[in-house]
Amino acid sequence: MDIKVVRQIMEWNENCHEELQQHFNDKKILMINIMGSPGAGKTTFILKLIEELKSENLRVGVIEGDIAGKIDAEKMAEKGIPVVQLNTDGACHIEAQSIKNIVPEFDLDDLDILIVENIGNLVCPAEFDIGEHLKVALLSIPEGDDKVEKYPLMFTRSNALVLTKYDMKDYFGFDEERVIKNCKAMNREAEIFKVNSLKGDGLKDFICWIKGFIIKSN
Amino acid sequence: MDIKVVRQIMEWNENCHEELQQHFNDKKILMINIMGSPGAGKTTFILKLIEELKSENLRVGVIEGDIAGKIDAEKMAEKGIPVVQLNTDGACHIEAQSIKNIVPEFDLDDLDILIVENIGNLVCPAEFDIGEHLKVALLSIPEGDDKVEKYPLMFTRSNALVLTKYDMKDYFGFDEERVIKNCKAMNREAEIFKVNSLKGDGLKDFICWIKGFIIKSN
Repeated sequence: MDIKVVRQIMEWNENCHEELQQHFNDKKILMINIMGSPGAGKTTFILKLIEELKSENLRVGVIEGDIAGKIDAEKMAEKGIPVVQLNTDGACHIEAQSIKNIVPEFDLDDLDILIVENIGNLVCPAEFDIGEHLKVALLSIPEGDDKVEKYPLMFTRSNALVLTKYDMKDYFGFDEERVIKNCKAMNREAEIFKVNSLKGDGLKDFICWIKGFIIKSN
Repeated sequence: MDIKVVRQIMEWNENCHEELQQHFNDKKILMINIMGSPGAGKTTFILKLIEELKSENLRVGVIEGDIAGKIDAEKMAEKGIPVVQLNTDGACHIEAQSIKNIVPEFDLDDLDILIVENIGNLVCPAEFDIGEHLKVALLSIPEGDDKVEKYPLMFTRSNALVLTKYDMKDYFGFDEERVIKNCKAMNREAEIFKVNSLKGDGLKDFICWIKGFIIKSN
């Protein structure tokens, strides 16, 4: 007799991820999962990104993942961005089921892109697919140039690495070549971007890249 | 009939934590658990701290927790610090059992203090006691002044909050009062320190504080 083996959580999560991805395909939504340490600059990056995308008539919604509170969601709402706060009540990552529960809060016909700001954590979120088409890992210059080596799963599984707070590179003596070499060694396809989100420097390249994945034709 | 309920992992962990703490008491070792985000400056802080403690004839050993690699352990070894690398192979935190397995690698009679550098993560390590007398949370200025609110468990459970890379305060417009107010609101007893580890600024206050907990009489 064959014994059916179910890999608890991870298998359910993967099924739910595929179902979500199909739903986003049907609705012609590009879904981006933004990950990184606490303080990597995820919120500032997303805010500036949306500002620039707006000027190209691209419509973006945001799911703000946080353990507690709604500080970042409030920042999005202030700018008139459709946003839903997802609180994990202590959990260190987001799972696909949570995204599935939240998606009905958005009118997907009115969006081109859905961005999820994951929990600030360079470890656990990398393990969970949540319906995204693109995983983007942010690494801020002040975090240091050894982080790709120390947190390999995140950088192996991400489609792009964005170096944020790039204006601080010289101050912190950040060895950019080390980071790029290590990232490419574990993930040859990874795109690498260098951004100062406050000023918007480097965002154009990133936008140019994601535009290749946008499904809706305007 | 009474049904015995065992809280898997957490209960075993707590038993192991108490056993370890007793062992450290018997050996007159002060055990400190250093936590913080990736890039908060844990390794630099520990290196400078040990340099200063050495000049006061205090002997320190280090357990370096990392998901992968031994970059930080090598930095310790270079300085002649007794160090053991603990690799979690992907796990996002250290548990007490891992510390128990490693402790025999040290000659505790030759140490006054054992420092554990936990996995870079502001979430999961806060849940696990690992035999420590003191939990110390590092928050670096570039991470931003909203982190205490967003990762409350870490700051609720820590005996001290160390603001690292404090020299960057003005550059990042870091609202120190917000951080201190929020930290004290959830953890009235928390000690707060302001440190630039590269130069050693502010370390004296921290050393003065931990000296009150040192068990061995030299």
